[in-house]
Amino acid sequence: MRPNAPTAIQRDGRTLLLAMDHGLEHGPTDFEPVPDTVDPETVFDVATHDAVTALAVGKGVAETYYPSYEDDVALVAKLNGATNLRLGEPVSPKNMTVDYAAELGADAVGYTLYPGSNHEPEMFEEFRAVQERAREYDLPVVLWSYPRGQGVKNDTKADVIAYAARIALELGADVTKIKHPGSREAMAWATRAAGEVDVLVSGGSKTDERAFLETVRSTLDAGGTGLAVGRNVWQREDPERMLDALERVVFEDDTPDAALRGAVA
Amino acid sequence: MRPNAPTAIQRDGRTLLLAMDHGLEHGPTDFEPVPDTVDPETVFDVATHDAVTALAVGKGVAETYYPSYEDDVALVAKLNGATNLRLGEPVSPKNMTVDYAAELGADAVGYTLYPGSNHEPEMFEEFRAVQERAREYDLPVVLWSYPRGQGVKNDTKADVIAYAARIALELGADVTKIKHPGSREAMAWATRAAGEVDVLVSGGSKTDERAFLETVRSTLDAGGTGLAVGRNVWQREDPERMLDALERVVFEDDTPDAALRGAVA
Amino acid sequence: MRPNAPTAIQRDGRTLLLAMDHGLEHGPTDFEPVPDTVDPETVFDVATHDAVTALAVGKGVAETYYPSYEDDVALVAKLNGATNLRLGEPVSPKNMTVDYAAELGADAVGYTLYPGSNHEPEMFEEFRAVQERAREYDLPVVLWSYPRGQGVKNDTKADVIAYAARIALELGADVTKIKHPGSREAMAWATRAAGEVDVLVSGGSKTDERAFLETVRSTLDAGGTGLAVGRNVWQREDPERMLDALERVVFEDDTPDAALRGAVA
Amino acid sequence: MRPNAPTAIQRDGRTLLLAMDHGLEHGPTDFEPVPDTVDPETVFDVATHDAVTALAVGKGVAETYYPSYEDDVALVAKLNGATNLRLGEPVSPKNMTVDYAAELGADAVGYTLYPGSNHEPEMFEEFRAVQERAREYDLPVVLWSYPRGQGVKNDTKADVIAYAARIALELGADVTKIKHPGSREAMAWATRAAGEVDVLVSGGSKTDERAFLETVRSTLDAGGTGLAVGRNVWQREDPERMLDALERVVFEDDTPDAALRGAVA
Amino acid sequence: MRPNAPTAIQRDGRTLLLAMDHGLEHGPTDFEPVPDTVDPETVFDVATHDAVTALAVGKGVAETYYPSYEDDVALVAKLNGATNLRLGEPVSPKNMTVDYAAELGADAVGYTLYPGSNHEPEMFEEFRAVQERAREYDLPVVLWSYPRGQGVKNDTKADVIAYAARIALELGADVTKIKHPGSREAMAWATRAAGEVDVLVSGGSKTDERAFLETVRSTLDAGGTGLAVGRNVWQREDPERMLDALERVVFEDDTPDAALRGAVA
Repeated sequence: MRPNAPTAIQRDGRTLLLAMDHGLEHGPTDFEPVPDTVDPETVFDVATHDAVTALAVGKGVAETYYPSYEDDVALVAKLNGATNLRLGEPVSPKNMTVDYAAELGADAVGYTLYPGSNHEPEMFEEFRAVQERAREYDLPVVLWSYPRGQGVKNDTKADVIAYAARIALELGADVTKIKHPGSREAMAWATRAAGEVDVLVSGGSKTDERAFLETVRSTLDAGGTGLAVGRNVWQREDPERMLDALERVVFEDDTPDAALRGAVA
Repeated sequence: MRPNAPTAIQRDGRTLLLAMDHGLEHGPTDFEPVPDTVDPETVFDVATHDAVTALAVGKGVAETYYPSYEDDVALVAKLNGATNLRLGEPVSPKNMTVDYAAELGADAVGYTLYPGSNHEPEMFEEFRAVQERAREYDLPVVLWSYPRGQGVKNDTKADVIAYAARIALELGADVTKIKHPGSREAMAWATRAAGEVDVLVSGGSKTDERAFLETVRSTLDAGGTGLAVGRNVWQREDPERMLDALERVVFEDDTPDAALRGAVA
Repeated sequence: MRPNAPTAIQRDGRTLLLAMDHGLEHGPTDFEPVPDTVDPETVFDVATHDAVTALAVGKGVAETYYPSYEDDVALVAKLNGATNLRLGEPVSPKNMTVDYAAELGADAVGYTLYPGSNHEPEMFEEFRAVQERAREYDLPVVLWSYPRGQGVKNDTKADVIAYAARIALELGADVTKIKHPGSREAMAWATRAAGEVDVLVSGGSKTDERAFLETVRSTLDAGGTGLAVGRNVWQREDPERMLDALERVVFEDDTPDAALRGAVA
Repeated sequence: MRPNAPTAIQRDGRTLLLAMDHGLEHGPTDFEPVPDTVDPETVFDVATHDAVTALAVGKGVAETYYPSYEDDVALVAKLNGATNLRLGEPVSPKNMTVDYAAELGADAVGYTLYPGSNHEPEMFEEFRAVQERAREYDLPVVLWSYPRGQGVKNDTKADVIAYAARIALELGADVTKIKHPGSREAMAWATRAAGEVDVLVSGGSKTDERAFLETVRSTLDAGGTGLAVGRNVWQREDPERMLDALERVVFEDDTPDAALRGAVA
Repeated sequence: MRPNAPTAIQRDGRTLLLAMDHGLEHGPTDFEPVPDTVDPETVFDVATHDAVTALAVGKGVAETYYPSYEDDVALVAKLNGATNLRLGEPVSPKNMTVDYAAELGADAVGYTLYPGSNHEPEMFEEFRAVQERAREYDLPVVLWSYPRGQGVKNDTKADVIAYAARIALELGADVTKIKHPGSREAMAWATRAAGEVDVLVSGGSKTDERAFLETVRSTLDAGGTGLAVGRNVWQREDPERMLDALERVVFEDDTPDAALRGAVA
């Protein structure tokens, strides 16, 4: 049965998931703008900000650093991942079992899916096992739902994003992380397509502060329940300023303008 | 042993299976004609119509919405599925185990097979395991038998459809869902080829009301025991009208004309 | 250990195996010459003829119809099969486990192997598991040994047929079904190559009555112990006449001429 | 742990392994020069010669004929094999488990590996399981180490043969069967490369009597502990003569000349 | 949980891992410069030098020779490996289980990963199982992290090496062995990217004595904790001289000059 709302990674029904799986997905190059972020402790420290409801990291980072933060940070154990070195159709192999995540004290598990890839079938089968095992532990499942591969020409088109959101519902995720399709209407259709599944917008690469907050605002207004963010927080010199602003937008329903004014103050 | 007739998903030996796995197979685009259908509750409500003997949905939809409808709706848990984003030979990976379906309280399980695909061997092997496991739970097995792939030039030819029906018998399904081969004679040969297996005609995309009812009538007259229908019901503004008509055709053996007159009244 | 002779599917050390897996392998088209044969009961009835020592059918047919015939017919549960819709190198996936066959009350299990196919390795590995499991149930193993695929230019050449027979011995079958290599000398070499394994000639497509009986006669004279036959029996208007004649050839060591005279009488 | 020397298949620390897996690897064509050898009993009889320390055969042959010879012949159960019908990169699928070999009373297990083949990875993984399982039964492992495939241009070059021998050591075999690299120096390097692993020279196709004995002599002088031989024994009209000669070369350290004189006498 | 520092393979927090898996990876050709090294005992003897904190060898070598050295040498059981005969994308199949390594008395396990290879997904999945199993035995995991394959144009570029180091952290290794990226700055970034994971520089092929020591010095100065070395020790006529020098560089923080002066003395 689908469990209750994933409150362990929420605050007032909203989620701000700080993500830091970039070391595996992109390599340390993502840490170069703020070199200290290469040390996971820096990001764990950022994750103790009140605005952050959970931190998503991979196996090795979780087992090394999480023990010191488990009282202050909720953990989404990211179960799969891939380097960007490999060529060919996208696939994201599992590098941690649900059992191991549970042993690490995770509050939820995360899984990346690439619908449309030639490897869609294997990933569907693997996700099936992950989802059913997570149900046994009563661990919420967060699905990074990213259509990609030969079959996907444009992965931010409205119908592709709505499809991504729906797949999360169909396959039994509890929360899904999707890209923003560009308009509030398209995002509203995507969140409707996801049904009871919580929809988080994906932060993506670092962008203009206000533009980023607008995207988050648009998502919430369209029925989303939050965001997953990495580089737009920890690639900034002052991640706290951005988290202060996000806190206002996400939990106090401020406009980006008001939030930035508050954050500046 | 093959169990008794799948009475849990029948009424008087006939079956009207409402199907709603389109969110996974085609994406939310199928819900656009009647946008409210993007909310699975809408379709579950439709499924409470007396004419509907069972509803087929996937894992996530079942675990989210079925608990509120389990007293009113019989559930066919659809165990596999694929997006239409992926290119290449058709294959439909499993996203739910029979055990999980049983836990959800399913009255039967459903599985899509693509005979003729290059992936036929893997699907045969997976179906084997599904079928044998379902026997242990005494759960009837509904086979979506759809020849498709490089080896299949025309998937509605009479001999291909009869082959599809026969495969259901050979592999141990209890019910099969096939396309209509175009003539009553061809459908009669297909139902004979299926032996003791119940044959349901597949509704397909939304068509003219009367034409659709004629297809159903032709199937029943040819020895079929019912239909599986999705878009021809819930893509209509007034799905109840269509279900009223179907009820007369399927359970009262009316002609389409009489049924439509009754439905109008 | 290799079990004793498979007496459960023999009579006086000879075997006449009626086979009806054509619905899966070729589709219902094989039933068109005698349309009633599309109903498996028709073939089960034929199998009650005294000349028939066992009937080979697939999972769904066995579980549906065998319960009514188990006192009169010995069952060879055919464990694998493939449609002729799929293109590409031959492979025959398993659609029934040995355990399930045992549960159905099978007297032996049957498995099709395509030596020479690019899929030979997977089939060898699967056959290994089947054979060893069958030994645990003390169920004789009948191997359809059919060299086929890119590596096989001519599958009725003497050395290919002898190889097919030898493979059955090497891999641990108890009975093998091979094509006739064309001459009695070639068949004698093949039966020698099979060692203690019983060799049955494969009936193949429907041919001239006398020619067919000659092939059977030649096989027995060459050290074979019988035949597996499908279309040459049930595609005839009068299958009983053919079975009467086969009974004389196989069990009374008559010549085809004498057998036909007896059958006519 | 590596067990003690495989004394069950040795005599005075030397091994003469009679091999007869040709029925699977090459087909009955190898038995044509001496047609009686198509009957495995003929070869089992040959294996009772005092010079033979063990006989290597496959599953079906072992389970059929070994029970009558188990007091007189030590058995190396050959666990994998392939036909020469299949095209494509070499691979040798397992057709017998170690457990089954143990049940048959085997004194050792044999496995063919094709380093350099595109299928090297699967074979390494399978050999791993075989080797570790054999250790549990305390059964010595004989590795047919045959570099072959796209990556191997010349499989009798000195460095390739030494590599083959070393692989046997690295992967945990107890005995290895390699081709002769052509010179005693090259063979000496190969036996050094194998460390504690016993090295047997492979007999190969039938050759001149004296040349064959020279090869064996050269192997022993180079640190090898014996030979595996098939066609060079049982494709001769008088296999006993060859075994008499081999007995003198292998166990009495005679020269080929002396051995042949003795064999003639 | 990540275990404590792998002290069993360290001395004062530093590691000098002598590696000898070349027999499998490259073949005996690597032993030709000092032919006695073809005998693993020679290398085990070298491993008893005080400077060596652990020896990495494969399954067969470990089970044969380690029992005589287990009081003097710490063992890193190398779990996977491949020949250099095979063409195609790099992959390193497992030839020993963690359980077997534990049974052999290993102090740690080693695994080679090729990020960027088309086989990255299978290796990630296999490493996952290895890592989690090793945690159960409390065995440290040493990752040979070697980006390689179609997706990797230059495997010693700074960002590729830093990526390799980070992968070790992300996937849950305890120690990683990487190539030197050429400059101390690049190595420093790599060791930072590895977080708590110990970084060992890979010795590579035999080079100039002083150049090699400079590389080690540079690694230690950049935050690395040691080296893994094979040919640069045992391909020298006087491996002890090199180990004496390495001891001074690694454990006494000498410069290469001082170390060589000391070693000469």
